[in-house]
Amino acid sequence: MIFHDTETIVAPATAVGGALCVIRISGKEAIAICDNIFQGRKPLSEAKTATLHYGNIVDGGVVVDDVVVSVFRAPHSYTGEDSIEISAHGSRYIVNKILSLITHQGARIAEAGEFTRRAFLAGRMDLSQAEAVADIIASSSQAAHAIASTQMRGAYSDELRALREELIRITSLLELELDFSEEDVEFANRDELRNLLNTILNKVNSLANSFSLGNALKEGIMVAIAGRPNVGKSTLLNRLAGEDRAMVSDIAGTTRDTIEITTNIDGVTYRFIDTAGMHSTNDRLEQMGIERTEQALRKARIILWMQDCNECHSSMEDFSPTPNQTLLRVVNKIDLMEGHHTPSAQDELVPTFYISAKSGEGVDKLIEEFKSLTNASSAYEGEVIVSSQRHYDALIQSRTALQSALNALNAGISSDLLSEDIRQVMHHIGTITGEITSDDILKSIFSKF
Amino acid sequence: MIFHDTETIVAPATAVGGALCVIRISGKEAIAICDNIFQGRKPLSEAKTATLHYGNIVDGGVVVDDVVVSVFRAPHSYTGEDSIEISAHGSRYIVNKILSLITHQGARIAEAGEFTRRAFLAGRMDLSQAEAVADIIASSSQAAHAIASTQMRGAYSDELRALREELIRITSLLELELDFSEEDVEFANRDELRNLLNTILNKVNSLANSFSLGNALKEGIMVAIAGRPNVGKSTLLNRLAGEDRAMVSDIAGTTRDTIEITTNIDGVTYRFIDTAGMHSTNDRLEQMGIERTEQALRKARIILWMQDCNECHSSMEDFSPTPNQTLLRVVNKIDLMEGHHTPSAQDELVPTFYISAKSGEGVDKLIEEFKSLTNASSAYEGEVIVSSQRHYDALIQSRTALQSALNALNAGISSDLLSEDIRQVMHHIGTITGEITSDDILKSIFSKF
Repeated sequence: MIFHDTETIVAPATAVGGALCVIRISGKEAIAICDNIFQGRKPLSEAKTATLHYGNIVDGGVVVDDVVVSVFRAPHSYTGEDSIEISAHGSRYIVNKILSLITHQGARIAEAGEFTRRAFLAGRMDLSQAEAVADIIASSSQAAHAIASTQMRGAYSDELRALREELIRITSLLELELDFSEEDVEFANRDELRNLLNTILNKVNSLANSFSLGNALKEGIMVAIAGRPNVGKSTLLNRLAGEDRAMVSDIAGTTRDTIEITTNIDGVTYRFIDTAGMHSTNDRLEQMGIERTEQALRKARIILWMQDCNECHSSMEDFSPTPNQTLLRVVNKIDLMEGHHTPSAQDELVPTFYISAKSGEGVDKLIEEFKSLTNASSAYEGEVIVSSQRHYDALIQSRTALQSALNALNAGISSDLLSEDIRQVMHHIGTITGEITSDDILKSIFSKF
Repeated sequence: MIFHDTETIVAPATAVGGALCVIRISGKEAIAICDNIFQGRKPLSEAKTATLHYGNIVDGGVVVDDVVVSVFRAPHSYTGEDSIEISAHGSRYIVNKILSLITHQGARIAEAGEFTRRAFLAGRMDLSQAEAVADIIASSSQAAHAIASTQMRGAYSDELRALREELIRITSLLELELDFSEEDVEFANRDELRNLLNTILNKVNSLANSFSLGNALKEGIMVAIAGRPNVGKSTLLNRLAGEDRAMVSDIAGTTRDTIEITTNIDGVTYRFIDTAGMHSTNDRLEQMGIERTEQALRKARIILWMQDCNECHSSMEDFSPTPNQTLLRVVNKIDLMEGHHTPSAQDELVPTFYISAKSGEGVDKLIEEFKSLTNASSAYEGEVIVSSQRHYDALIQSRTALQSALNALNAGISSDLLSEDIRQVMHHIGTITGEITSDDILKSIFSKF
């Protein structure tokens, strides 16, 4: 049961600190409340929807600010309720004063995400779209924005909803069989059901598989730069960042802690991590740095294993990447190389890039490799990519339930057990689009706004 | 000569970082430019003024964001030009993308204060009102807001403008006399002129006198807490701030540098400065602290000279306040007082407050004294208070010119010299309201936005 809140809510919709600040009010009393503190050419109660009104916000007889008020009448508003937006001057004093005038008239300060929550409850968007609003607002790179934007336009929730409705239709036939359990009839075509379950399984699989990329694009692709001391890791970091961020010296072990910089390359956010050099040491501080390096390596999506071209004895150590990780070998200091490079056996095992972090030679090829590994173009092309942990979890649970249902179907198991498995599928898919939800789920989702 | 810019300008009007961000576009091409990137139910070129339009911002075929667009047609806008406000989701990516789409259509990014500058040039407000807009936006206390708000509503510029026009009328008569200089005629009534000059002088004096308070209310009333080491200065600071901001110990000399905290009491901003204890020392760091204390004392509006009630020998040292400063004697540690307090000779000389900074006893009376010294209520009551350094300078120059004109008048000096003095008065008053201005003055004013 979802509690439909009828209180009128108010909150700043923009950050405070610019020339203007917009304060949003939504609910049954929004227009009446504003009329009590607004003096314009005519009362807002007489205003048509989607109109703008210049006037003063007044506190008793005192003018607080001159403002422009937008009037949106239900259902033609973001929340679907009567809504007002007050565009005031952006001083903290004015914003607080107007908020206090409005709450004194009986509105209350909105909770995090409450406007979007109301939009969802009013059926203005499904749950997956509502969640995308928060991602849209947080997006700082083109790729993250593209993913959230596709999700907000209902990309996969529309498709999942359609498949789920198809499933509901077949399940109702399946459950009809229970009423005739004595008679061994099959109202639900088993082949049709199997096809549908397989279609959904394929869809769910492809969405779940996109999560690894989606999450990386949303949070930033983590690239760890590892290797022995003094092979030039910090120099490469500075080169990739385009600025001097990490302290560089000829002294091995200059970098003690991991240093992370975030940079945007062609619309994708990368989080480059410069790690402390890996080597045996008794220095307690250095040991701590190396432990933190190992943590960073476990989390990275791309690992650059750097070597000095003049010290070819250094091996890859004993680090083995997980299936989600890509290991690239980077041989540095080619500007200082003695004689010509002779390809080593390691070149065959791991993609290898010969660079000079100092002069920049070869670094562009490395960056091209990042781009092809990231495959961010799929996001720009509107391909459907899941980036929400909550959706991924629901997809994995849907997949388990789908496999269980298919097994049951193939084993010719009774309609009641089969229908129970299918109900599980419908439940988990429904949590993504919001057909299945609870106040707790909603609270947790919208509190992230 | 002021250069009237006809380019279309664009800039975010709100801070970025909230759920929404408003981007403002102003100029002849504002509506046409937006129509090239906006897809709604109908083109914005067909929209009436003061209407809102839901739709998408598109880049080629790709949707950048769904937005609400406000249309304001000249002259019914802030700048007096055709203007558009795009209310987009507040992500940095989206805001930058929309700005870049609009500048690609031929608009340019607005300079600081340029929208308000255009409002001034279009005659939507006078210069003093335009300057108040920046103060309104920056105001963080009720008092600062009240002063800026009064100024924005044209409080003293209206009056100055009327007096200046009266002066222009009389001066034109005065200059007519020059054409008849052979004939010794007086078209301009000298008594009337003298009365007018005196009226203006009174007005200018009262405005100039309000500057000290106005500036203090705008910047915050500076209150320095001075006295010997270990009399409890930091304890009083923490008490006034309502939180632990300064390090406190029993050791004399704990506070080495001046510590400033800003706090709001009944709508007025106070800047309390805890100073290093004043005493002779050879410690270089302590000496630096004491030098900084002396600087703080020179700038303060109110000086609290703290003493320990058990060390009544400590004198006021050799500090003498300026006429703009108020010295209050604060006798601390009455909770530790041995026996009863016997009023000392110093009680008669300087207003004295007996307090316990530790328990808070007596501190409320001290705060009441701040309030009555500040006299901020005059600001709330809409009394005209000058808070702009530029206006103050112009008022002082007007005053000099007025006195010179009155002297010339009383000395029966010739019309041409008299009229020159009066032109000076008109010039300086005109710079406040903006009748007299230059591109340089405007640049300097609006660059502060």
